[in-house]
Amino acid sequence: MSDPILHDPRSDVPPLVVVLSGPSGVGKTALANRLLASDAALERSVSATTRPPRAGEIDGNDYFFWPEDRFTEGVAGGLFLEWAKVHGHRYGTLKATIENRLAGGKSPVLNIDVQGGRSVKLLRPDAVLIFILPPSYEVLERRLRGRGTDPDPVIARRLRNAKGEIEHWIDYDYLVVNDTLDEAVGRVRAILTAERSRVVRFRS
Amino acid sequence: MSDPILHDPRSDVPPLVVVLSGPSGVGKTALANRLLASDAALERSVSATTRPPRAGEIDGNDYFFWPEDRFTEGVAGGLFLEWAKVHGHRYGTLKATIENRLAGGKSPVLNIDVQGGRSVKLLRPDAVLIFILPPSYEVLERRLRGRGTDPDPVIARRLRNAKGEIEHWIDYDYLVVNDTLDEAVGRVRAILTAERSRVVRFRS
Repeated sequence: MSDPILHDPRSDVPPLVVVLSGPSGVGKTALANRLLASDAALERSVSATTRPPRAGEIDGNDYFFWPEDRFTEGVAGGLFLEWAKVHGHRYGTLKATIENRLAGGKSPVLNIDVQGGRSVKLLRPDAVLIFILPPSYEVLERRLRGRGTDPDPVIARRLRNAKGEIEHWIDYDYLVVNDTLDEAVGRVRAILTAERSRVVRFRS
Repeated sequence: MSDPILHDPRSDVPPLVVVLSGPSGVGKTALANRLLASDAALERSVSATTRPPRAGEIDGNDYFFWPEDRFTEGVAGGLFLEWAKVHGHRYGTLKATIENRLAGGKSPVLNIDVQGGRSVKLLRPDAVLIFILPPSYEVLERRLRGRGTDPDPVIARRLRNAKGEIEHWIDYDYLVVNDTLDEAVGRVRAILTAERSRVVRFRS
């Protein structure tokens, strides 16, 4: 477009691919839920996984629960935007899931492992990659214990992994500290508002 | 830094150089005043100009009022970050003004002509360039008439210039429509929050 007044940058902006990552226990799920509840343009991306369902989880809603051989075939067939092995199970985002959201005018929100950001950025440089940090390692440990879902050896392993996970921040576009959830949600919402105002998104 | 948790991305972010531009009458001054009042980290950049002072304007506060020959020497001596001739007068931002603000930990806010953005970006690629748009040309005309400071021929000239000015949007980083001032201020504040969260600003 040559004259942006003929369009309206507040409504004509194309949907965004939004990636949230961070170490286990940092509060990504609570943050994603609050974001999704507050912005009708956002829609959750459902991942595929080889992990068995937990109590109450529904196939196609929480995850697509795929057996190992199907996941392996999907990887070989180039069906995944990103995938990673985490704590012994594979998790991945299907390209079709993202295309589907975008075609409906929705901005898919990917809550994915820290290894995933770089892969998404390679295939979709226009994606918005947000890395969520805990305010300290002490707070991260407290949150992992507070969930009450994992036995001690699992918590110890998650904490050992956290330092390595946090090194992936460098592959992301934005850093947000999740100290209080309200403040973190506000910052992520500001990032989305800013990204929707970027000139590069109107230069097509 | 290798581990961002050792720093705090909410407080350790370096100051930003913030540029606001847009066609005459779009409401840049009101927007800048609201921004400056709402964020103690921001500080207004005072421009130099060859325009004579209007009633009530104070040298060094509203502008540095420089005679033509001094401005010409300043340009030749490389003192300016940007300068432009607008409606027959020259206006410019002194590099020293910006360095001074940054050295004090403040983010200078430059309310400058649409020609200035590209010059600033060349010398300071880390600057945040925001282009303010009116919702329509009709609204722009109404605002120019509403100020009551300019005679009709001046308003007519400003309106003719507006289309040419708006073409400079492509040199900027962000587009913000100033429909209601509250919404526009909110969007600019979101942009500053996002820019302060960008990973590139922590990779030094």
